[in-house]
Amino acid sequence: MKNTFGQSVSVTIYGESHGQAIGVVLDGLAPGISVDEDFIQSQLTLRRPSGSISTARQEPDPFQILSGVYEGKTTGTPISIMIPNSQTRSKDYSATRALARPGHADYTAYCKYHGFEDFRGGGHFSGRITAGLVAGGAIAISALKAKNILIGTHIKSCGNIQDREFQNLEEDIQALNQKSFAVLDEAKASEMHEKIIQTAERKDSIGGILETAVLNLPAGIGEPWFDTVEGLLSHALFSIPAVKGVQFGNAFDMVNGFGSEYNDNFRMQNNSVITETNHNAGINGGITNGMPILFQCAVKPTPSIYQAQNTVDFFKNENAVLEIKGRHDPAIIHRARVVVDSITALVLCDILAGRFGTDWLA
Amino acid sequence: MKNTFGQSVSVTIYGESHGQAIGVVLDGLAPGISVDEDFIQSQLTLRRPSGSISTARQEPDPFQILSGVYEGKTTGTPISIMIPNSQTRSKDYSATRALARPGHADYTAYCKYHGFEDFRGGGHFSGRITAGLVAGGAIAISALKAKNILIGTHIKSCGNIQDREFQNLEEDIQALNQKSFAVLDEAKASEMHEKIIQTAERKDSIGGILETAVLNLPAGIGEPWFDTVEGLLSHALFSIPAVKGVQFGNAFDMVNGFGSEYNDNFRMQNNSVITETNHNAGINGGITNGMPILFQCAVKPTPSIYQAQNTVDFFKNENAVLEIKGRHDPAIIHRARVVVDSITALVLCDILAGRFGTDWLA
Amino acid sequence: MKNTFGQSVSVTIYGESHGQAIGVVLDGLAPGISVDEDFIQSQLTLRRPSGSISTARQEPDPFQILSGVYEGKTTGTPISIMIPNSQTRSKDYSATRALARPGHADYTAYCKYHGFEDFRGGGHFSGRITAGLVAGGAIAISALKAKNILIGTHIKSCGNIQDREFQNLEEDIQALNQKSFAVLDEAKASEMHEKIIQTAERKDSIGGILETAVLNLPAGIGEPWFDTVEGLLSHALFSIPAVKGVQFGNAFDMVNGFGSEYNDNFRMQNNSVITETNHNAGINGGITNGMPILFQCAVKPTPSIYQAQNTVDFFKNENAVLEIKGRHDPAIIHRARVVVDSITALVLCDILAGRFGTDWLA
Amino acid sequence: MKNTFGQSVSVTIYGESHGQAIGVVLDGLAPGISVDEDFIQSQLTLRRPSGSISTARQEPDPFQILSGVYEGKTTGTPISIMIPNSQTRSKDYSATRALARPGHADYTAYCKYHGFEDFRGGGHFSGRITAGLVAGGAIAISALKAKNILIGTHIKSCGNIQDREFQNLEEDIQALNQKSFAVLDEAKASEMHEKIIQTAERKDSIGGILETAVLNLPAGIGEPWFDTVEGLLSHALFSIPAVKGVQFGNAFDMVNGFGSEYNDNFRMQNNSVITETNHNAGINGGITNGMPILFQCAVKPTPSIYQAQNTVDFFKNENAVLEIKGRHDPAIIHRARVVVDSITALVLCDILAGRFGTDWLA
Repeated sequence: MKNTFGQSVSVTIYGESHGQAIGVVLDGLAPGISVDEDFIQSQLTLRRPSGSISTARQEPDPFQILSGVYEGKTTGTPISIMIPNSQTRSKDYSATRALARPGHADYTAYCKYHGFEDFRGGGHFSGRITAGLVAGGAIAISALKAKNILIGTHIKSCGNIQDREFQNLEEDIQALNQKSFAVLDEAKASEMHEKIIQTAERKDSIGGILETAVLNLPAGIGEPWFDTVEGLLSHALFSIPAVKGVQFGNAFDMVNGFGSEYNDNFRMQNNSVITETNHNAGINGGITNGMPILFQCAVKPTPSIYQAQNTVDFFKNENAVLEIKGRHDPAIIHRARVVVDSITALVLCDILAGRFGTDWLA
Repeated sequence: MKNTFGQSVSVTIYGESHGQAIGVVLDGLAPGISVDEDFIQSQLTLRRPSGSISTARQEPDPFQILSGVYEGKTTGTPISIMIPNSQTRSKDYSATRALARPGHADYTAYCKYHGFEDFRGGGHFSGRITAGLVAGGAIAISALKAKNILIGTHIKSCGNIQDREFQNLEEDIQALNQKSFAVLDEAKASEMHEKIIQTAERKDSIGGILETAVLNLPAGIGEPWFDTVEGLLSHALFSIPAVKGVQFGNAFDMVNGFGSEYNDNFRMQNNSVITETNHNAGINGGITNGMPILFQCAVKPTPSIYQAQNTVDFFKNENAVLEIKGRHDPAIIHRARVVVDSITALVLCDILAGRFGTDWLA
Repeated sequence: MKNTFGQSVSVTIYGESHGQAIGVVLDGLAPGISVDEDFIQSQLTLRRPSGSISTARQEPDPFQILSGVYEGKTTGTPISIMIPNSQTRSKDYSATRALARPGHADYTAYCKYHGFEDFRGGGHFSGRITAGLVAGGAIAISALKAKNILIGTHIKSCGNIQDREFQNLEEDIQALNQKSFAVLDEAKASEMHEKIIQTAERKDSIGGILETAVLNLPAGIGEPWFDTVEGLLSHALFSIPAVKGVQFGNAFDMVNGFGSEYNDNFRMQNNSVITETNHNAGINGGITNGMPILFQCAVKPTPSIYQAQNTVDFFKNENAVLEIKGRHDPAIIHRARVVVDSITALVLCDILAGRFGTDWLA
Repeated sequence: MKNTFGQSVSVTIYGESHGQAIGVVLDGLAPGISVDEDFIQSQLTLRRPSGSISTARQEPDPFQILSGVYEGKTTGTPISIMIPNSQTRSKDYSATRALARPGHADYTAYCKYHGFEDFRGGGHFSGRITAGLVAGGAIAISALKAKNILIGTHIKSCGNIQDREFQNLEEDIQALNQKSFAVLDEAKASEMHEKIIQTAERKDSIGGILETAVLNLPAGIGEPWFDTVEGLLSHALFSIPAVKGVQFGNAFDMVNGFGSEYNDNFRMQNNSVITETNHNAGINGGITNGMPILFQCAVKPTPSIYQAQNTVDFFKNENAVLEIKGRHDPAIIHRARVVVDSITALVLCDILAGRFGTDWLA
């Protein structure tokens, strides 16, 4: 299975940047879940390039639900959502057909698809394909929210500027889900914004870290081997084109400490089992323990930059220089955030439906 | 699917720490691959607790190939390898049955399996279960090596002591695969060893980072979405009980730089396409570009420590104190290294067989 | 996975009879396969109700390729084909909402989806959903044909009238693929046609047997257990709403004979291994032996009949009488034939790509 | 996935006829299910060749539960059951190494595995491998029985002698499950037995039809497409080496009737929805309707016969004559019956756990 993910709840995506349409088929969701089309649209809006920061391409992303929803609720059969491509400026791309953009998949696509790939605008590798995940993910987010399972992501760092740490997780998540630029500390948000503008002026790009929290998952979901909560989430999260690392808690810092510091002792609180700390990020042995899930995605600097770059012409097998023209999107991290939330929700719906049955989410 | 991973080449594991046996069924490998039983045994020896560092349990891990190998070669049908459990000191565990060891899966296992889990010695969550992966992985490593695809892992850091960086990858991999304590710089190896001994004396534990390199993979394998090389590897790697983070290249450092620094420009070299740098770790858009694959696993401090720890009794729902007796294994990272190699090999065999057909590995 | 089938080449279907659209996502096909839109359209035309026999609903089934095809060839990425629903006479259905049509899935859909199902016109259970399989299958049929793998299906019997047996398989297949009513003996075709008309006049329906042949498959594909060629084909074929039996060769007759009659002795012919007879239908131990694959699908009488029938109102839990109005489609068997061909092609592409790699079909 | 079947509850089999052992790993069963080792043994005894009819090989089939069962109950983790091979008369086979037994998989195995297959005694294709399915299936049968879901199979016909029809399903199932030769009418059983003996004397073999009933499945399980109850069951049932056809109800007879005869009108009975007839065998649109599931497997005449047969030497590519020596097993149908029950139980556990969650079967 290639463009399909999930067993009990599965998601299939398709499309190319400059084809007729992109889309998603979401299958296995319980019947009877309310579908909020405004929320889907608002999530799609968070994902698309826009405003003063990312102006490379403005696509309104109107979507059509082709199946699986009847009278505002899921039917239990596949939900097909199509997002037509309206701006398909195809002629921009032919001149640089065989010049591999550094950091992009042009060359690897050629190795895999032997030149038959639709190369225009990144084709099937375009970040635009994530819109399908966001549309499907919006329904998953709503379904989880109805079960009081909350997901929120902030830009923990961007261009080396740090947001504050999570404090009150529930309040922070609610605040983040009202923001289009998901930074907890507004002063830091301004600094990041400024840094992005400056970077754009230098025709360069930056990256950062997204940190996600999930609240109120029941204890006891996930598997000890292979389908650990960490494994399933990371598998899907690495689909986000710029994500190159996933850590739960602060794993890459935790490696320098001692077991006595990081073991997360258990305690009773209000007749429930909790842990005093949460370095293990809500997961022991691949399975949830009832504490919040916390993870971070490393988002590399956006590979699209507008400086001259050395590269090759892979048709001619010779060195070349590439200078991309066009408008600029120097930091996709603030848009990737909604993709992280979406993927997280889809994966969790899959795990929950597998554990508790197909009707549990209804 | 729970304890099975992989599509074209799949691996199924079973067993509990104190049951009759643990084992693995490896399915989908091409017929005609040479099976080196000595190499399987030597890999199992690298994994098991031993020597002056980890002395908690010494199990010789003799294995039996029950099926799938005939006259020293794979038949193409499932390879079943069983490793009997010989030391099953079951009486040690009953007194602390419901005292959740912090950092371990005792409590989450109880939430998932409702008390029916075989709790003795960690049961199905025991690190010992990875022996099945190591046995199966040894065959996968050999199959890849016959295709000149090389895998090597070093302890990049342990207890905050850093090994040197990879230099000549092929030489470094060959050197590592001769070592039982996989550190490139022998002076650093001694420091780490000393740190581990000191930590054991304090009844504490440490963790570290494992860094893996894979050479000579063909360009063009992996998928753009979901079954990215990063996604598949990380999915499986998070099965290693103490792994809490996976990054490709130095992703969590790369986030602070600029696109112009990290894009990995392409160049021709000896009529082949290479990249000048390799920050993207051999993968663009989820697909290999022919450069080395590089990734790091964050291994948390071993949760088994021998100090008194606060915890709960989850049968009685009350606070408790737990002090584990027994011998000490304060740093599993040097043993986890062979599990990383094994899982990497299994995942790559799956990707390669899916891409090029079931006979390609023969 | 629910509405997705196949591992190496997978097909995902969606849609309801009276929703916005139905469609298919076909993933994993090799890049570079020619896509013949006229052939897709002609296959869709064979499937849809039409002409003097089936006149219940005439939908022209125009389709749109949304992705995965570029300049007339497959790209290797998901092929999304959408077929809009144009005639959605929804008001016909509300009065009989909770009256289960005998032989149909109205009641079982209610049990599964708790009343949230889109019940209009059979919803997701409508035979119309097979149009997605036919559209995707058309591409698979073309890909196989380019490899000289030929598929043909005839109506072996309909309303107890028998077509002649297959004689020259290659000629028969070519002839069948030129016919809209796939009967080898034209006199028998006329009899069947007459029987269908008579049955329609009695407001009743009939069924029959479809027999399929596949030529020139390489020997050695399929698995000994679970993913046998028989198992994979039957799994998918039972998706055709009226198919209730699948046999390879004449299995239900063969049970009455002796091993000495049915063993299919091997012989050399032109330096190739053949069998003297082909009672095992080209498959030994789940794996192809190079002889033609032959199988039959039992197609029950179409459940839609226009007589008064006893039933229940499953909202009120009381007995009721249902008399369906509308135009009449008394024998779907002649349309099901193209669905059988399509499913067969999709399953074989999956098996072949899994065996020989993703590029083999190109 | 090749030797693994099922998603929520999966079964993995391994082994060769003359290797060290065969076995099964059963994963995903709920924790807390009672495991009756005597019942497992009695099921294995029903499967193995024995008594006056099948005397080819008498293997006592002692089994070992290696994992997944603790204090007599399932733990929820993989259940590994190994059955050692004790009689491995390997020298019998070398002389006829490349002489393809007609009706067997020797030649197709060679095409698939290129000569690396363990050919001794049928290797991985041996009917003996079904012992793993029977051992795992025994646990599944018990789990279903605890939920009042009953499975029973009779030899509907053997060598053209017909058993009586099912009458009182519950009583018939209970009676069948006490019989080693599963025929409802004892007089017919004697006739069949006599026919088998006569056939053995003629060094020939016969086949027959197995008919299975499943009672008390909840309505609403199964999927409308692909994972229909019919599709999932048939997929797995075709793994039984001699099964070449599967029909639900009397599908291949039903094709000759009218919709008005076969539609199974619904009625209320004791406040439950039933159907007046059950030609659709408890399944509408792929989903259970609460009525009994009924299906038939066509079992071809056992391919092992002891007459001289024409064949080829596939090493030398020349014609040959093969005469198999040894003891005789002229009708495997009475042993295949327990394999059908086992596979049916495994598939149903998978469907039920997927629908209602992993704990439902506990």
